Amino acid sequence: MNNVLGRHLLVEFYDCDTQTLDDVAGIETHMNDAARACGATIVQSTFHRFEPWGVSGVVVISESHLAIHTWPEYGYASVDLYTCGDEIDPMGAYEHLRRVLGAQESEIQMLKRGNLDLIKARLEQNALSAAEAELSKSILLKGGVL
Amino acid sequence: MNNVLGRHLLVEFYDCDTQTLDDVAGIETHMNDAARACGATIVQSTFHRFEPWGVSGVVVISESHLAIHTWPEYGYASVDLYTCGDEIDPMGAYEHLRRVLGAQESEIQMLKRGNLDLIKARLEQNALSAAEAELSKSILLKGGVL
Repeated sequence: MNNVLGRHLLVEFYDCDTQTLDDVAGIETHMNDAARACGATIVQSTFHRFEPWGVSGVVVISESHLAIHTWPEYGYASVDLYTCGDEIDPMGAYEHLRRVLGAQESEIQMLKRGNLDLIKARLEQNALSAAEAELSKSILLKGGVL
Repeated sequence: MNNVLGRHLLVEFYDCDTQTLDDVAGIETHMNDAARACGATIVQSTFHRFEPWGVSGVVVISESHLAIHTWPEYGYASVDLYTCGDEIDPMGAYEHLRRVLGAQESEIQMLKRGNLDLIKARLEQNALSAAEAELSKSILLKGGVL
């Protein structure tokens, strides 16, 4: 994990408890508990219930965010657990949610976000280009004086 | 797109304008404009600036969410554009953000969320299991009566 800024777990929870998926206050509690379960620091959370059913919400954490969208009619919830730094383990949040949503099946994809090798290479290239431009300018100026 | 519930663009913007990335009010405006650019309906938005630098924020839309995390010190922003339904095109939000953040380079991954074939197969299997259980119970009860 040294060469990336963040880890992003994309989770599909299938065959969950449908009443749980439609309870906006409960989902907000579960998502905040999930943030605490992985050691994250909660900054803000915002949740909304749609008509006739379904809940969407996000917990912004100091280390990125956790998001959920539920389809109670399908027993399905889509969850994003995006964390930065090595001290936070998004799997703790995943385990908590799998249990409280009563998911019978889940799929996980783990993606790395922010390639630090690429970022640093570009910063170095930009610094080099700026230095070259400065040098060219200096040579031109001296040429003009001579 | 008929067999999935959502489309999720994961975008890495490199070599952006650093001042833009550190301006929380500006980032919130750009993200709300990005939501409108792809035809989404904004439900709520929440943004936060970190010390000494960096902005995180999310726009919850009726069709899922848009999220951003910025690292001004690296000229880097990580963006999620997650939309549901065929009427919303997350590429409109991507194009808007690429321009206003001044990104010189970007990477995009498009993921499908919520496999409807799997969801429907599980619902049918559950309905079948419930019907079988009901039939077994009925046979047992009749057996007891006879």
